Amino acid sequence: MLAAARLADAQDELAFVRDRFELPDGTVYLDGNSLGPLPRAVLPAIQELVRRQWGQDLITSWNVHDWWGLPRRVGDQLAGLMGAAEGQVICGDSTSVQLFQALVAACRLRPGRSVLLTDGSNFPTDQYLADSVGRLLGLQVVRLHPSELALHLGQHDERVAAVSFSLVDYRTGELFDAAGLTRAVQAAGAVMVWDLCHAVGAVPVALDQIGADLAVGCTYKYLNGGPGSPAFLYIAQRHQQQVELPLTGWNGHREPFGLNGSYVPADSIERARIGTPTLLSMAALQAALSAFDGVGIDRLRAKSLALTQQVIDFADQRLDRFGVEVVTPRRPELRGSQVSLRMPDAYQVCQALIERGVIGDFRAPDLLRLGFPPMYLSYADVHRGMVTLAEILADGSYREPRFAQRAAVT
Amino acid sequence: MLAAARLADAQDELAFVRDRFELPDGTVYLDGNSLGPLPRAVLPAIQELVRRQWGQDLITSWNVHDWWGLPRRVGDQLAGLMGAAEGQVICGDSTSVQLFQALVAACRLRPGRSVLLTDGSNFPTDQYLADSVGRLLGLQVVRLHPSELALHLGQHDERVAAVSFSLVDYRTGELFDAAGLTRAVQAAGAVMVWDLCHAVGAVPVALDQIGADLAVGCTYKYLNGGPGSPAFLYIAQRHQQQVELPLTGWNGHREPFGLNGSYVPADSIERARIGTPTLLSMAALQAALSAFDGVGIDRLRAKSLALTQQVIDFADQRLDRFGVEVVTPRRPELRGSQVSLRMPDAYQVCQALIERGVIGDFRAPDLLRLGFPPMYLSYADVHRGMVTLAEILADGSYREPRFAQRAAVT
Repeated sequence: MLAAARLADAQDELAFVRDRFELPDGTVYLDGNSLGPLPRAVLPAIQELVRRQWGQDLITSWNVHDWWGLPRRVGDQLAGLMGAAEGQVICGDSTSVQLFQALVAACRLRPGRSVLLTDGSNFPTDQYLADSVGRLLGLQVVRLHPSELALHLGQHDERVAAVSFSLVDYRTGELFDAAGLTRAVQAAGAVMVWDLCHAVGAVPVALDQIGADLAVGCTYKYLNGGPGSPAFLYIAQRHQQQVELPLTGWNGHREPFGLNGSYVPADSIERARIGTPTLLSMAALQAALSAFDGVGIDRLRAKSLALTQQVIDFADQRLDRFGVEVVTPRRPELRGSQVSLRMPDAYQVCQALIERGVIGDFRAPDLLRLGFPPMYLSYADVHRGMVTLAEILADGSYREPRFAQRAAVT
Repeated sequence: MLAAARLADAQDELAFVRDRFELPDGTVYLDGNSLGPLPRAVLPAIQELVRRQWGQDLITSWNVHDWWGLPRRVGDQLAGLMGAAEGQVICGDSTSVQLFQALVAACRLRPGRSVLLTDGSNFPTDQYLADSVGRLLGLQVVRLHPSELALHLGQHDERVAAVSFSLVDYRTGELFDAAGLTRAVQAAGAVMVWDLCHAVGAVPVALDQIGADLAVGCTYKYLNGGPGSPAFLYIAQRHQQQVELPLTGWNGHREPFGLNGSYVPADSIERARIGTPTLLSMAALQAALSAFDGVGIDRLRAKSLALTQQVIDFADQRLDRFGVEVVTPRRPELRGSQVSLRMPDAYQVCQALIERGVIGDFRAPDLLRLGFPPMYLSYADVHRGMVTLAEILADGSYREPRFAQRAAVT
């Protein structure tokens, strides 16, 4: 299998992209689905921003270096990675904040309706915010799995205001049918809100083509924007005149410098701006996105599927004997860019892997979650990661006390 | 007057602090109340964060470098600058977002009441968010000036749920009576929300001593955290078990790593966390705050008042003939750390000043707003700034077409 991996690397059209990243020697990093590694373009961009723009040009940089336009410019860069035309994505704030904006806006687009649907296995924040928005707007929150949507809508069509799903399940790595689900939601007269956190940069997302309504996502996973890099909000052009966002900061005003006492939202995606953008973090993201220049999401997707297939094949052949179960769907069209392996003592195994330089993460109660961003991983990296996992399971070293359980971070 | 300025500089106990900042040669920077200049400690901190923590230690930095604890640690640093004991301030997000959190939380603490009061000359975002929260919670929003509060509360005591004021008026620089207004609001059974954007780092704020309820503020003005550096939320210890914040991101959950489907807020100020913090911007702020080490807010206040008095005296003696009016209160106890001068053609004058290396800002329709952060300004700087202003007004150069009006940024 190593020979096959080496051959695949020799033929990898995307091998050149790895040089755009700083990666520590000797580490196999399988957690880029949680925090992407450092693109080389980031530090020079930050140094320029801090030293010259902030340090020398001070407040005038808002105009001279067009700091003011950054949320829109980075938004347009992001739009290009999600199949969206320009002018529909704004960058800023956290995914939580953007999701709150999107859920309130979506429900307000359907004022007579009383139900907000979310996925009961959705990322916790998505569920918490659905509950919070339900409380604020007086809506009933219903949890169901995307696979149950068609049946549910058939029964309750006219009550559902909005539906909030993640395109890729953060635990299992299952990729849902964006086009079909969006169509079903809209056919019921409801508004669809997609959370793209585990999708953007890893799988093709064709927002305009599928007629998406609203979408949010983070940028520190497959987009490598750095810890806590700003999130984004997509609002389809056709909704931009109607959406009423609850976080009415002055940046989103039609005349932000008019300093008026009452809020009139901008006519465009600019209405999704809130307060002053976090320039340092956003400039880092802007530089990080240059790692995608000339790469193309379809080639990334092809390599991603090859890597995850390599992992699934390895698990089938070499890990089955240790009680390891592949949780991620085997059908490529149902798979994001991660593979989750269910196993006893998953936490301890994850820690033992880290000690041997293979970094993945653990999701309670029993998942080892491994991410395979195709930008910088080689087939040989993946092979080494899997062999190390097999060794740890075989030698039982993960049972040593130093690997005992404590908290982990997404 | 120059001789007096030089003498004051020679006797200035805080002169040493200027070396903690990068300031461009030849510039007199009177806009630190909008964007503070670059503290020297920032760039090394960012380089360490990016190169080593993100670049080398990757996802493990959440534990190894305690990224997870940063919003609380920086919050505690901020608390020290506002007269608050530890464990009451969280750092993160923008002022707009924090204000939204605070206003919803404040109103929810008084469920039977129907009015949210704000200042009709408050910063626009504060008014917009009051309206948005009023709409979401079904409250009437009433605008009045802080000077009208006592009378109003006397008439409508039991209807007012919360009051939202800025401690320093962003246009006039008027400093309000934090203790007295808080007392009046609480005597009426309502909850006080302070916006400290133009106060923190510039005037003493004794949150615990005045029995404050909730407060928010930004960190890129007098705290020099950099463009768009994260804001903060203060929640008095006694309210922390009760406040119900609307932005229920997973970071604020009692067991953030339990990944539960329903939200249970943390018992402490940690419930004010929302999503993943913007690490780069927050680390820059953390480093920036070290410029306050060993300085002391009382000494800063004394120098700030001396600088603004110097400006007012200069205006009275040398600018009156040009129709310049000092808008900022002359009584020191009613003055923040800025002086606003009303004059014809204030926009053009501001532009002409910038061209001569004196940076202030313009506030529509007729204010030249000058900030006097005592950390890095000398009396000679201030003298030069004012002499330049007098020259421009005298020679009429501000009337040249290149200074014609366009948008400015806060």
